[in-house]
Amino acid sequence: MTQQSSTPAPNSPVTVIGLGPMGLALAETLMKNGHPTTVWNRTPGKARNLVAGGARLAASVADAVAASPLTVVCLKDYATLYEVFGSAAGAAAAGRALVNLNSGTPKEAHAAASWAAARGVAYLDGAIMVPPPLVGEPGAAFLYSGPREVFAAHRDTLARLGDPRHLGSDPGLAVLHNAALLGLMYATMNGFLHAAALVGSAGVPAAEFAELAVNRFLPTVVDATLVAQAPDLDAGHYPGGLGTMEMNLNALEHIALTCEEQGVHAGQPLLMRDIAAQAIRDGHGASNYLAVFEVFKKEAAPGAR
Amino acid sequence: MTQQSSTPAPNSPVTVIGLGPMGLALAETLMKNGHPTTVWNRTPGKARNLVAGGARLAASVADAVAASPLTVVCLKDYATLYEVFGSAAGAAAAGRALVNLNSGTPKEAHAAASWAAARGVAYLDGAIMVPPPLVGEPGAAFLYSGPREVFAAHRDTLARLGDPRHLGSDPGLAVLHNAALLGLMYATMNGFLHAAALVGSAGVPAAEFAELAVNRFLPTVVDATLVAQAPDLDAGHYPGGLGTMEMNLNALEHIALTCEEQGVHAGQPLLMRDIAAQAIRDGHGASNYLAVFEVFKKEAAPGAR
Repeated sequence: MTQQSSTPAPNSPVTVIGLGPMGLALAETLMKNGHPTTVWNRTPGKARNLVAGGARLAASVADAVAASPLTVVCLKDYATLYEVFGSAAGAAAAGRALVNLNSGTPKEAHAAASWAAARGVAYLDGAIMVPPPLVGEPGAAFLYSGPREVFAAHRDTLARLGDPRHLGSDPGLAVLHNAALLGLMYATMNGFLHAAALVGSAGVPAAEFAELAVNRFLPTVVDATLVAQAPDLDAGHYPGGLGTMEMNLNALEHIALTCEEQGVHAGQPLLMRDIAAQAIRDGHGASNYLAVFEVFKKEAAPGAR
Repeated sequence: MTQQSSTPAPNSPVTVIGLGPMGLALAETLMKNGHPTTVWNRTPGKARNLVAGGARLAASVADAVAASPLTVVCLKDYATLYEVFGSAAGAAAAGRALVNLNSGTPKEAHAAASWAAARGVAYLDGAIMVPPPLVGEPGAAFLYSGPREVFAAHRDTLARLGDPRHLGSDPGLAVLHNAALLGLMYATMNGFLHAAALVGSAGVPAAEFAELAVNRFLPTVVDATLVAQAPDLDAGHYPGGLGTMEMNLNALEHIALTCEEQGVHAGQPLLMRDIAAQAIRDGHGASNYLAVFEVFKKEAAPGAR
């Protein structure tokens, strides 16, 4: 069983636990790349196509984990991880590596790392930043956190699934980045959808607006600025020479007013106005707009939920 | 005075009213491109450098407007436009073109178009989507709305300032697009700043996060999706096969929980959760996430402000 050494061979065996749409995509990608693949799912029928393609369906999680130096787990949440593994599979995993890809909070990831450590399991927490159809495609971002040597030992196998990025040894970093990136995704999507509703109130098609807003405006005016100014966030440096928080508060008031005039939902601009007003109350009235970063770093006032 | 015909010569005279940072950039750009430039500002001292560079400082707005077939107005708001023009300049502008670039609401733009029509003035409303240092640079987006023939007659001159885009004959379209694009800008900036605060709670530098979030994640995962799916918004077509609103509501709950766990502001994810919940109450639980567009198209519940 030389393939079960700590540095797996190029086509080292891999086990995939959990065969939802994402787990299926992971297993298919590994098989396509020539990795002997063992799978397990609570409902074994989900493995039918994989088995037809050459995968081995294990009879138990312990059996599945014992088959490979690396097990990739893609279940619903951490509670399901503990439930599915039980005591037998936890013992079977000793001395092997587990990469857990469900989403959760940093606290849950830390607890899972402790659970694994107590069983002698090498543990990485991870997050998949693409939908199932993009697994295995160039540039598909897969985030990992946990011991660097565990990542290094399995990097080549993980690279079959997408572009693997090790964020650090703190096991909570992958799920934390996952929550942050999804929050950015939702904020940008909501920003676009709201803007499309606003111009739509005058009969402008969303498809026409997307070309201007997403293909032209966002990359040149917004994205480039954010990357250029990100180091100022780390320095807490918000010079207001080209525009102050007070000016931005006026602009946000104006956007909310336009929404009301057009009969369009004003919740988002009003919240952004309130956040800018909070920044001003905190002493950032003459700073530039990026100083809202200081508001975000603190918990919202009690009762906001 | 052949240059005052309805199709101005390449270097037709232009008047600029209002010399704040943006008005100065407009006048400088026109002069650099060889247009005889007349300027007026309430505080004439602001014109000093322009006059040293060859601009003519008019003694009154009426005098300024009379000097050129096209006057570009860059004042604070519509109220200032009416105040500055008074009755003399309104009369002097008859038969000439006025391009007004202050921000405001569509209703205000419609009122200004009527004001101009009553005086025989050819009127375009406009919006500048770049900061003053980018005026005259390739790709600088300038939006215009109003009669197509007025835009066509002055297109070449307006192209000196940036890339001119005529949005339609409804004079309110430019300020409406301005509000929509700025709303998208703030939403994306806030999304990034909040995400940077969230990973920052675990010590991740914003500059490091920007590289992953803005340079890699946004263009590939978010922007491309929005452009591809925008036609579905126009069709009201939200198939949930790859993910439902219910699943997205769970994800937003999870992001808010992570914020609370990390001691970071949760206002934005909580509002987005509430908007998704509203979409579900409206019958879109099995639709995909883009169905929040239907929520945005309606006014928020009374009392939201």
